[in-house]
Amino acid sequence: MEQARIEYPWERLRQLLENADARPIEEFLDGLQWSERARAISRLSSEDQERLLTTLAPRDVADIVENLPEGQAADLIELLSPQEAATIVEELASDQQADLLGQMEHTSAEAILAQMDPGEAAEARTLREYKPSSAGGLMITEFVSFTEGISVQEVLHRLRLHGAEYAEYDIQYLYVVDAHGCPMGVLRTRDLLLAPASKGIAELMVRPVRTVTLSTSLQDLAHQFEESSFYGLPVVNERDVLVGVVNRRAVDDALMQQSENTFLASQGIVGGEEFRTHPLGVRARRRLSWLSVNVPLNMLSASVIAVNQETLGKVISLAVFLPIISDMSGCAGQQSVAVSIRELTLGLLKPAEILRVVVKEVGPAVINGILLGAVVGAVAWLWSGNVYLGGIVGAAQGINIIIAATFGGLLPLALKRFGFDPALSSGPILTTVTDMCGFLLALTFAAHLLVHLA
Amino acid sequence: MEQARIEYPWERLRQLLENADARPIEEFLDGLQWSERARAISRLSSEDQERLLTTLAPRDVADIVENLPEGQAADLIELLSPQEAATIVEELASDQQADLLGQMEHTSAEAILAQMDPGEAAEARTLREYKPSSAGGLMITEFVSFTEGISVQEVLHRLRLHGAEYAEYDIQYLYVVDAHGCPMGVLRTRDLLLAPASKGIAELMVRPVRTVTLSTSLQDLAHQFEESSFYGLPVVNERDVLVGVVNRRAVDDALMQQSENTFLASQGIVGGEEFRTHPLGVRARRRLSWLSVNVPLNMLSASVIAVNQETLGKVISLAVFLPIISDMSGCAGQQSVAVSIRELTLGLLKPAEILRVVVKEVGPAVINGILLGAVVGAVAWLWSGNVYLGGIVGAAQGINIIIAATFGGLLPLALKRFGFDPALSSGPILTTVTDMCGFLLALTFAAHLLVHLA
Repeated sequence: MEQARIEYPWERLRQLLENADARPIEEFLDGLQWSERARAISRLSSEDQERLLTTLAPRDVADIVENLPEGQAADLIELLSPQEAATIVEELASDQQADLLGQMEHTSAEAILAQMDPGEAAEARTLREYKPSSAGGLMITEFVSFTEGISVQEVLHRLRLHGAEYAEYDIQYLYVVDAHGCPMGVLRTRDLLLAPASKGIAELMVRPVRTVTLSTSLQDLAHQFEESSFYGLPVVNERDVLVGVVNRRAVDDALMQQSENTFLASQGIVGGEEFRTHPLGVRARRRLSWLSVNVPLNMLSASVIAVNQETLGKVISLAVFLPIISDMSGCAGQQSVAVSIRELTLGLLKPAEILRVVVKEVGPAVINGILLGAVVGAVAWLWSGNVYLGGIVGAAQGINIIIAATFGGLLPLALKRFGFDPALSSGPILTTVTDMCGFLLALTFAAHLLVHLA
Repeated sequence: MEQARIEYPWERLRQLLENADARPIEEFLDGLQWSERARAISRLSSEDQERLLTTLAPRDVADIVENLPEGQAADLIELLSPQEAATIVEELASDQQADLLGQMEHTSAEAILAQMDPGEAAEARTLREYKPSSAGGLMITEFVSFTEGISVQEVLHRLRLHGAEYAEYDIQYLYVVDAHGCPMGVLRTRDLLLAPASKGIAELMVRPVRTVTLSTSLQDLAHQFEESSFYGLPVVNERDVLVGVVNRRAVDDALMQQSENTFLASQGIVGGEEFRTHPLGVRARRRLSWLSVNVPLNMLSASVIAVNQETLGKVISLAVFLPIISDMSGCAGQQSVAVSIRELTLGLLKPAEILRVVVKEVGPAVINGILLGAVVGAVAWLWSGNVYLGGIVGAAQGINIIIAATFGGLLPLALKRFGFDPALSSGPILTTVTDMCGFLLALTFAAHLLVHLA
């Protein structure tokens, strides 16, 4: 009996693309879960991807692009002609336009901007100038504001009047501004609901307004949102004029991205996300850039063995334990690195608090150093039948774990202080230092006890 | 000249605590940024923390507790008597009550529940039963619903009537239910704003309602929120009755937590966050639990050297390069592990897609294996003056990087398939396998070319 083969979503998508009919493709994609959709699209050939984007209506393509990981979205849009790309980019919210264009090569982005509505293009260019992780980079410029002196009724009237335009906005708050555009107060939609129609908005608005500036950092924004239950914070420029709104969702997304990049960087993936759909050359080069930093660092730690080769030649069984000492210490140090990176991110620790880290790390380091040193030392003794070898291995392992855990706790503080990314640089530096110390301890002890090891 | 010392926030807080006056303490804490506040409280002694919690009003303590990392919050509340703790826990939203109580020892949680309002306690007990990462665990039970057949005016009237109670709710949507409590439609506050007062809510409500069940997973919830711009999704029980609402914010927070735990687990921090404020014994034990798994794994890889000790004794200069081969391969494998974990999380990759990973990993693996093998081999040749040693080291390094990068890409798929956490288990298994292979390759090659290496 023939067995029916399960059809992958991208196979079905490919078939649908053969008759360039938008409707069934749309319906099929709508029926997929978000991640299934991203996966199905990523599995298509470049030609099929291009066909997909040009077959669907720009609004529908924009919906898809909005929900893809940023890198994947930029790769897709770059498949299109600037003209086609522009119609899609115009459908996105201002902050997403800026993010997407910022992910592209400068010339591709400029070609698309040249085809866009001049007003929108100017706005996207301005937003692109701001750091992606600042209020300027995270804000949207679609917001609704009124000058004070009008009533609730008038506000509702104007909202109805611009219903079509505002339908795309995410209205949680309306802003009340003075004649210069400086924010005076915030109107919450739920207050508008419950207020008498004749009430003046000046009475109803919440004040003072908590504002942020264009350069307010992601960390500060996160704190402001943590402290309050606001859905958005108004952003003002240097003249105190309301220029945009940062939504909680944009801040949450940016924090998530940051947390993911911390994980990837700690594992040696440099420069943001890598997807297996990226071109081979790009993936190999990006990975190599990090691996090649490790070559000289590894040479450095191996040089400790090279210098002490004579000792090792006389106690060859020590060579069995050198990798164990090095790996266990690396693991212990890595745990401390992670706790420090986490506490730094949460703001529970400042880069200057060296003493606190030392005091707090020495405790677990000593306990685990003694326990693991004893275990590894005992194994060395039992295996070799030489109590001195056991002692050397155990002592080197124990001391090196204490060094590694303490040094690992401090390393992210130092890196942060000198402007490096602790997630990216801690691993290679940690292993170099712990390897050097571990090898040095074991080989030095052995050199002094050579007579007992023969 | 005497230099003024900068006062730390916790020092000021300690002074303020000496006169048990709530007002100045409150004002001082309000003036601190969120992270500064968390840090200041974490630096107090247990006695001072207890004094702080009992001096402030329960509502203010609840505000503080809400914004602390979960683990820290539970530790704080456990300092109080069950009676005192209950008054604070009652001020929290239902999902936060459940999360907080879930973080505590069972007996402490029960003692607090016994002191709470029986209705609230029953609700918290029920919520605690759901998996924290399911819709049941993430939902709040504070929502507003109406049976159909009433007008916009009537809704506004009832909202005004219960204004005090609803003020604490986060009203984005109101739900319309039938006589059994099954959801019929959703009323958006902004539609209520713009609708004529006489309109029936049945006409105004959005339908069909997209609901989730108590057991809907975090991953599914994330997809639903990605696909839509909803702020909340109604949760129904097995009889289709509306029992709660999952807010976007709760899902975002849970995803953030998950992403952070991935990072921590990959660095060997087991069982969620570790803070340096945790007791020494707990920290040492948790770290040890992961380190001790590495001991037998390390023994396993070292056994390859032990078996080939004789070869190594004859070519002692190879001992200099074994750690380099092992570390570089480990790094290359780790990069592939990270990309796979990330793609699995995003749903871009399924655990069964082994072939795809192999095909996609072999490319960068071969390029980087050849390049790095050539570099490390050349160094070995130049340093030893022996071209055979250079060849052995280079070949072992190159081949092992190819093995490590490919195996690293597959490992998370296999672990996931068999129900293990890839973030936690990939590292130790990867290094064991890459070490064994690397040592075996280098020592086997050397054994065959011994005559040329003397």
